[in-house]
Amino acid sequence: MADVITGAYELPQTMEGHYVLHDLYGVHWPFWLSQSGDERLAVLAEATAWLREQAGAGQMRSALYSMVGQKADLLLLHYRDNPEGINRTERSFRRLRLFSYLRPAGSYLSVIEASLAEANAVVLRRLAERSLIIGSSEYQAAFAAEMAKERKVLESRVLRFIPDQRYLCFYPMSKRRGETVNWYALPADERRALMRGHGKIGHRYHREVIQVVGGSIGLDDYEWGVTLHADDPLVIKRLITEMRFDPASSRYAEFGPFHFGIRQPGDDLSGLLQAAIA
Amino acid sequence: MADVITGAYELPQTMEGHYVLHDLYGVHWPFWLSQSGDERLAVLAEATAWLREQAGAGQMRSALYSMVGQKADLLLLHYRDNPEGINRTERSFRRLRLFSYLRPAGSYLSVIEASLAEANAVVLRRLAERSLIIGSSEYQAAFAAEMAKERKVLESRVLRFIPDQRYLCFYPMSKRRGETVNWYALPADERRALMRGHGKIGHRYHREVIQVVGGSIGLDDYEWGVTLHADDPLVIKRLITEMRFDPASSRYAEFGPFHFGIRQPGDDLSGLLQAAIA
Amino acid sequence: MADVITGAYELPQTMEGHYVLHDLYGVHWPFWLSQSGDERLAVLAEATAWLREQAGAGQMRSALYSMVGQKADLLLLHYRDNPEGINRTERSFRRLRLFSYLRPAGSYLSVIEASLAEANAVVLRRLAERSLIIGSSEYQAAFAAEMAKERKVLESRVLRFIPDQRYLCFYPMSKRRGETVNWYALPADERRALMRGHGKIGHRYHREVIQVVGGSIGLDDYEWGVTLHADDPLVIKRLITEMRFDPASSRYAEFGPFHFGIRQPGDDLSGLLQAAIA
Amino acid sequence: MADVITGAYELPQTMEGHYVLHDLYGVHWPFWLSQSGDERLAVLAEATAWLREQAGAGQMRSALYSMVGQKADLLLLHYRDNPEGINRTERSFRRLRLFSYLRPAGSYLSVIEASLAEANAVVLRRLAERSLIIGSSEYQAAFAAEMAKERKVLESRVLRFIPDQRYLCFYPMSKRRGETVNWYALPADERRALMRGHGKIGHRYHREVIQVVGGSIGLDDYEWGVTLHADDPLVIKRLITEMRFDPASSRYAEFGPFHFGIRQPGDDLSGLLQAAIA
Amino acid sequence: MADVITGAYELPQTMEGHYVLHDLYGVHWPFWLSQSGDERLAVLAEATAWLREQAGAGQMRSALYSMVGQKADLLLLHYRDNPEGINRTERSFRRLRLFSYLRPAGSYLSVIEASLAEANAVVLRRLAERSLIIGSSEYQAAFAAEMAKERKVLESRVLRFIPDQRYLCFYPMSKRRGETVNWYALPADERRALMRGHGKIGHRYHREVIQVVGGSIGLDDYEWGVTLHADDPLVIKRLITEMRFDPASSRYAEFGPFHFGIRQPGDDLSGLLQAAIA
Repeated sequence: MADVITGAYELPQTMEGHYVLHDLYGVHWPFWLSQSGDERLAVLAEATAWLREQAGAGQMRSALYSMVGQKADLLLLHYRDNPEGINRTERSFRRLRLFSYLRPAGSYLSVIEASLAEANAVVLRRLAERSLIIGSSEYQAAFAAEMAKERKVLESRVLRFIPDQRYLCFYPMSKRRGETVNWYALPADERRALMRGHGKIGHRYHREVIQVVGGSIGLDDYEWGVTLHADDPLVIKRLITEMRFDPASSRYAEFGPFHFGIRQPGDDLSGLLQAAIA
Repeated sequence: MADVITGAYELPQTMEGHYVLHDLYGVHWPFWLSQSGDERLAVLAEATAWLREQAGAGQMRSALYSMVGQKADLLLLHYRDNPEGINRTERSFRRLRLFSYLRPAGSYLSVIEASLAEANAVVLRRLAERSLIIGSSEYQAAFAAEMAKERKVLESRVLRFIPDQRYLCFYPMSKRRGETVNWYALPADERRALMRGHGKIGHRYHREVIQVVGGSIGLDDYEWGVTLHADDPLVIKRLITEMRFDPASSRYAEFGPFHFGIRQPGDDLSGLLQAAIA
Repeated sequence: MADVITGAYELPQTMEGHYVLHDLYGVHWPFWLSQSGDERLAVLAEATAWLREQAGAGQMRSALYSMVGQKADLLLLHYRDNPEGINRTERSFRRLRLFSYLRPAGSYLSVIEASLAEANAVVLRRLAERSLIIGSSEYQAAFAAEMAKERKVLESRVLRFIPDQRYLCFYPMSKRRGETVNWYALPADERRALMRGHGKIGHRYHREVIQVVGGSIGLDDYEWGVTLHADDPLVIKRLITEMRFDPASSRYAEFGPFHFGIRQPGDDLSGLLQAAIA
Repeated sequence: MADVITGAYELPQTMEGHYVLHDLYGVHWPFWLSQSGDERLAVLAEATAWLREQAGAGQMRSALYSMVGQKADLLLLHYRDNPEGINRTERSFRRLRLFSYLRPAGSYLSVIEASLAEANAVVLRRLAERSLIIGSSEYQAAFAAEMAKERKVLESRVLRFIPDQRYLCFYPMSKRRGETVNWYALPADERRALMRGHGKIGHRYHREVIQVVGGSIGLDDYEWGVTLHADDPLVIKRLITEMRFDPASSRYAEFGPFHFGIRQPGDDLSGLLQAAIA
Repeated sequence: MADVITGAYELPQTMEGHYVLHDLYGVHWPFWLSQSGDERLAVLAEATAWLREQAGAGQMRSALYSMVGQKADLLLLHYRDNPEGINRTERSFRRLRLFSYLRPAGSYLSVIEASLAEANAVVLRRLAERSLIIGSSEYQAAFAAEMAKERKVLESRVLRFIPDQRYLCFYPMSKRRGETVNWYALPADERRALMRGHGKIGHRYHREVIQVVGGSIGLDDYEWGVTLHADDPLVIKRLITEMRFDPASSRYAEFGPFHFGIRQPGDDLSGLLQAAIA
């Protein structure tokens, strides 16, 4: 991480945490349903044990969603410490007997990130109220102490567990690099002001919607993978609508496909695949 | 829903109703037709019972269309109270024996929405004729009473049954966010004026075409899913053509694929799959 | 159809005729050729009878083309009175045994259309030479009589049979709705002038190329499906090239994929599928 | 062909020759390799005889390339007199037993074309040196005689055999019809000047690279199919790079996918499919 | 290679080295895992021997990566002397028994290139310090000697072995040829200045990230294939992010899909396919 005190460096400073894999699958329903009850029980027992182990004891590192629409039947969401952890998880999943009954329906790799610029600004404002001489050793010590606190806060965000809200909306996005409207050609000040406005909208919904932003430059096809978690599906619609009117999005966002799903109660694979639903 | 009295908030205010799933399928005809008559009767009996139950007694909550062209053979259109209702329906459909003979051909998730801004404007005009002092408690009471009435009207629209016209045209669309032509960067006044003009065209056709607008921000890849229902196929062509010249569309609309179908008389699955048509 | 006398209404006035389906298929050659001679004869007998019946006695309502390139092996072109006629035809085709040996390779739905604006202009010019008082009952009677004649001419075009020229070129297209170059934002006068110029090019080739324009707004993904029929393949290339330089196309046309085929002599399915060609 | 003397007509005048099909296939290697040696020999004998017959005795009308990368394993390149010749060839190929082991991987139809405008200009310059009175019958006779010579030269180009260089690069392309940068809206003079500059680059490489330009307006999805043949792979890279900086390309060209292959020595199908390559 | 002394020629001068193939595959896991242990051992023995032989004794000419996400399971990266070497390698791989268990998931062909312009500039600066008379025979001899040294350096780069860092990020890219923002329409000076700035960023990371740039004009669909090799995954993210803000990328780069993988320890195919990973 570059030194964030100087502020001379205009790049966005980010702190990274868990790596995230969105792993989507369809089910070959007729093939699956044509298996004997015993076979299905055995397959589900193996897969359920795998998922329980992956999810971690009470840690919510893996979660299961039932997806709406034909794009996919289920989503496995994984948080891991590093790319190897992600790779090990997906590779072990593909070795399950359940995998024979699934059709890969898309995946997305990202790493949860948080902006250090914001933390830096907060600390500078806080210090300004303490009448320290800027540049003095006391100032530097105070800065270091405050930043350490802020980093703790950010770390708890980028190393968070999977939220347990009922609905999930996932979409990848990039900032526009158009011929005239180009995010990456904006002055750093303007970018920061836009992101601040954008952040405020998210903040207004923070009690209702948990927003997990994964950076994916160099990892996957878009620049970010955004996941929204909420207990009210309409509040997700409203948040994205409101953001769409915010200049940071209205002018600069380009969206990939949207995926909407429902957390499977108890991450219960058997329930999703076995239950005859009336 | 935000407070619509103040008018200070510039976002579009919407009322949401039924969730809608357009569920398209092709038929593996040779495989289907190679089954014995008994097998086909059994498969159709199960599927017909399912559809009857889904559709609700006389409630038109699910409907069947025969689609024209190779994109799909049939469309199942579902209106439900919430995402769980949609998900339960599609998941139970996939467990039918009929599903073995089908090929998923696309789906679209949205939620029927109506604009509260329009209702708000109507009420304000109505109150203006009653010489009440704006802001007085009588004014506020009158406003509340009138808005309650308008909400009833809107509710009957967003919680409507599936229209029973013969032809259906479905297409997803978004408002353009181009580098210079950008719906979301327009002043709210201008957006409202454009939508009013747009609404007038729809209104002119309201006896011939039922227009169901589903919002899909956060639910699917476009911002809306539009379904037109009419008994004359050319009036659908004419309505969309006329809208295409209207500035709200000519400058700001981006369309996805179009699907055109014919309501299957009596939502009769057997008729669609079984009848030898000369 | 709106009243075309007034001229006050700026929308393009069209007369619609036959619905058109372009139905493209590939052949699973190895699977087909692995069938016994008897099986193939039986399959072809059924399909040939179907095509003969569909085509209508001497009416050229259905026709067969051998397509060039890997996109498709054959095209079935159907003209019908209404969407139900199209749907019945495609559904009955899918029930033929031949269908087991085919791979759907794309379809396009449209309805043949002709411009009434042009007819209207012609009549107005004709009446101008007859020194009638505009608005008088004689003028109105003369207008009605002349328009009736013109409508007959247009009807014979939009209700035409399938042309029997040797080569076919089909492509879907839309008018551009760009951020600065936008057909639907042009003044009606300008659009008409552009279409007139465009029509003149088509007219110059009218002895060599039959151009069938199907409107497809609300029916399929583009706004028109254009089919050119000619006995000289290069004259098709030349016509489209010339149109590409015409402002109505150079600035405002957006083209979909092009399909090029050869009318199968006698619409002979057996010839296309059976003959060993050296 | 329009009269090229007058020069009044601003369209590009072209002479057309052979029709060209690029026919790309992948090989189902495991299926192919699982066949017995006898079966493979029989399949290859049939296909080799077919290719020998198609190629023409010493005429190089069909040729075989081994393609690099997963897009395709092999390319069959065919030159024929007319669309029927192309269609007959591809249809007969699909009837070979070899076809069972192949996967269609794309095709492109075009017709070799040469510009008459250039020839016309050359002749006019040549006549200008002979002090004939323009418009006189001698002038016209001289013009006709010189044009006849030039046509012979062009004919030998558009009716050429397949070049036998080692490497092939094929790509389709169109001229841009953007909102502001639009080839088809340029004055004819400017287009001609740009093409002249473009031609000069090609000419500079003419000893090292044979460039075959097939026009495909109305035949396939782009406007041209370009094939480069050379014995040095880097000279192909250099030529296209250089053209990319030339205004005719830098501003006006839009490229489709690129295919790179190696001429199979002796057009030897068996070698490509049979040989165990260390 | 054109003469680089004169500087009159404005094209980018490049030196080319190894041809590079990125060859991506998915694994048909259920099919693979359903094989007997003996079969799998035999398949892996053959494939492992093939890979060992391809990689060259200690030469790192072929390498194996485990890819993250559903796009692919494994990447084979090959460096070869010429297109024939690439083609021979991929063709021999397709003949392995292992190939039956794989699904092609994309490939990319390029040739490692380095800019001679930079070397030329370095040499000219160096000579300027030696007070030689420009154009004199001593000057020319000195220039030739220095350029020969520089070429050696570049050769060692374009003929390098495959880097052995743990993480790999691959993406194809092109320079933008937009209607107003067009790399190829820039003056050569401006292009060089932009590339110099771009190069500096890469240089700042040179200890942490090995960047291999393959030119692919005429070889594949984009203009370059870029591969980054690093031992820290976040440093790859940071480098690409930083470049995205650099004008050469922010305004002029267009990116294809991104692939992220982990070097398989010891290029061990058996480990990747066989190991049961907990």
